[in-house]
Amino acid sequence: MSNLTNQQIVLKSRPVGEPKETDFALVETPVPELGEGEILSRTIYLSLDPYMRGLISESKSYTANLELNSVMVGGTVSQVIKSNDPQFQAGDFVLSANGWQTYGISKSENLRKLDPNQTPLSYNLGVLGMPGHTAYSALLDIGQPKAGETVVISAASGAVGSVAGQIAKIKGSRVVGIVGSDEKRDFVVQELGFDAGINRKTQELSSALKEAAPNGIDVYFDNTAGEILEAVLQQINLGAKIALVGLISEYNAVHPPAGPNLRPLLIKRALIKGFLVRDYQHQQEDCLRDVSQWLKEGKLKYREDVVVGLENAPRAFIGLLRGENFGKLIVRVSDDPTAFPT
Amino acid sequence: MSNLTNQQIVLKSRPVGEPKETDFALVETPVPELGEGEILSRTIYLSLDPYMRGLISESKSYTANLELNSVMVGGTVSQVIKSNDPQFQAGDFVLSANGWQTYGISKSENLRKLDPNQTPLSYNLGVLGMPGHTAYSALLDIGQPKAGETVVISAASGAVGSVAGQIAKIKGSRVVGIVGSDEKRDFVVQELGFDAGINRKTQELSSALKEAAPNGIDVYFDNTAGEILEAVLQQINLGAKIALVGLISEYNAVHPPAGPNLRPLLIKRALIKGFLVRDYQHQQEDCLRDVSQWLKEGKLKYREDVVVGLENAPRAFIGLLRGENFGKLIVRVSDDPTAFPT
Repeated sequence: MSNLTNQQIVLKSRPVGEPKETDFALVETPVPELGEGEILSRTIYLSLDPYMRGLISESKSYTANLELNSVMVGGTVSQVIKSNDPQFQAGDFVLSANGWQTYGISKSENLRKLDPNQTPLSYNLGVLGMPGHTAYSALLDIGQPKAGETVVISAASGAVGSVAGQIAKIKGSRVVGIVGSDEKRDFVVQELGFDAGINRKTQELSSALKEAAPNGIDVYFDNTAGEILEAVLQQINLGAKIALVGLISEYNAVHPPAGPNLRPLLIKRALIKGFLVRDYQHQQEDCLRDVSQWLKEGKLKYREDVVVGLENAPRAFIGLLRGENFGKLIVRVSDDPTAFPT
Repeated sequence: MSNLTNQQIVLKSRPVGEPKETDFALVETPVPELGEGEILSRTIYLSLDPYMRGLISESKSYTANLELNSVMVGGTVSQVIKSNDPQFQAGDFVLSANGWQTYGISKSENLRKLDPNQTPLSYNLGVLGMPGHTAYSALLDIGQPKAGETVVISAASGAVGSVAGQIAKIKGSRVVGIVGSDEKRDFVVQELGFDAGINRKTQELSSALKEAAPNGIDVYFDNTAGEILEAVLQQINLGAKIALVGLISEYNAVHPPAGPNLRPLLIKRALIKGFLVRDYQHQQEDCLRDVSQWLKEGKLKYREDVVVGLENAPRAFIGLLRGENFGKLIVRVSDDPTAFPT
């Protein structure tokens, strides 16, 4: 046993519908001694992402569901405390998968060393991490937007949507972002440079889309499904491409809701394709290179929504599924020694 | 004026829901004199196809809807009566688009000469015509079935489905056909060589699919949408490909029904793509060559459902939308001088 105490958030019950804070519990356990080849790290940042909702429900998701009383999983940025692997030293910053806990034990093959001088550490959970890679590959591989085409993005101010929309702008497309507040709409248009924004909570979708996409929709980057997908389908162009990247609108649904009528797909010879970033590991280097470059050139802006303290992760996660975050949601679990560099 | 009288079936009213015979009327008009470069032909066979339902409804289809009191459109096989174009001679057999009438006037660019010694004339409206080309291109371009994969076909005994299923067999796939009667199920299994058949009217789809496709579904050739698509989606494999070729289940719907929940597309990173044969003119020669060869080798069997007399076209068309036909539905409008050759 080490003398460290691990704070962990575990799944206490499978939420039916919207998760409640009582579906989670904070427990304390001693951090076990390190085994051969193992690396102990302190969690600095934890990424909260909508896909996690799928892992804690009854129904099947990409992978086996999380067992009750298990620690919630999640991508993290950590600092190595102790290492039994010569590839890592105490003090190293690493991309890890510690999950919702203050310490994690990993094998070297599950860690990637991070250089805090290149970009803020937390960016590795967002624009330079899984969400950024999702935006990059789903947009460029499925959507394939061309100059002059119209690209619509749902959940457009979020971790994935904000990056996807800006990449579409870089490719010369007209970009329309659908968001859930006027503040977010102003953000995607004024800060991110989208051509138009729609507040789905106050604007009628069909007419707002007609106005924002007067030449029809060529590419739809769908983070939500639900009524936004339905409205978009009515206005797609011939050969439109829809990347189905998320289902935020129905993650909390007790029964899967019906989908849109697919007649527009037939009439417009359009396609819908499901996307999971796990299938695009081969593009990771290209993605990191391009996105880093765009960040450096100021072509890509990035906003984070940082919640402080592991104990606040459940509430923040529940808010994420409601769209209450504004930018990439991360939890600062412990101090980031590289923040506010002099 | 020639001294010929043209019998024509015109659209009298736009059907709401299932068409009625009174939505159509048989009228007689004199056949006008031929203009320069025009060709007059006598309709022998008229093809009846589900897409025609879209042309007579209020809502938008691929093309502008047919106007009231216009002659119903449709692909035909005809014999030239008189020609003002040197490329065609009286007596020639041609693929034409006379529509639902006994005579048609065409320009040469809209005709293709047919050789009745190669295949029965009527085949040019089915296995060697638009339905066969649809089956060929949608299956091979979107579905891309591989040896050992499982391919499911809806409306599997029909003009398109029967050809698609047999091509999938030729490609080495396991083929499951969904049909609407035990007789059709026996036909696709015993005559066409499908590996399994499902009678959607008497069998519970999900359990029948599990039994018929125990390794999951890799390709779905969808002629129907509706509950069959929904059931198939629950059993697709990773990377499954769904060609959306027809919507028979909802052509008569007054309001477009909801579609399936699309979560399986995301989880399985699968795709649905709409198909229209018009986009595949570049594959027509390949298709004709391959399908002719398969017919000759006996690898492809073809069944027709021939209705005699133009006046019976409306009733036959209504039955087609109910699935009452058995094989490719055509109307013999006038005698085929090449039939039953000695």
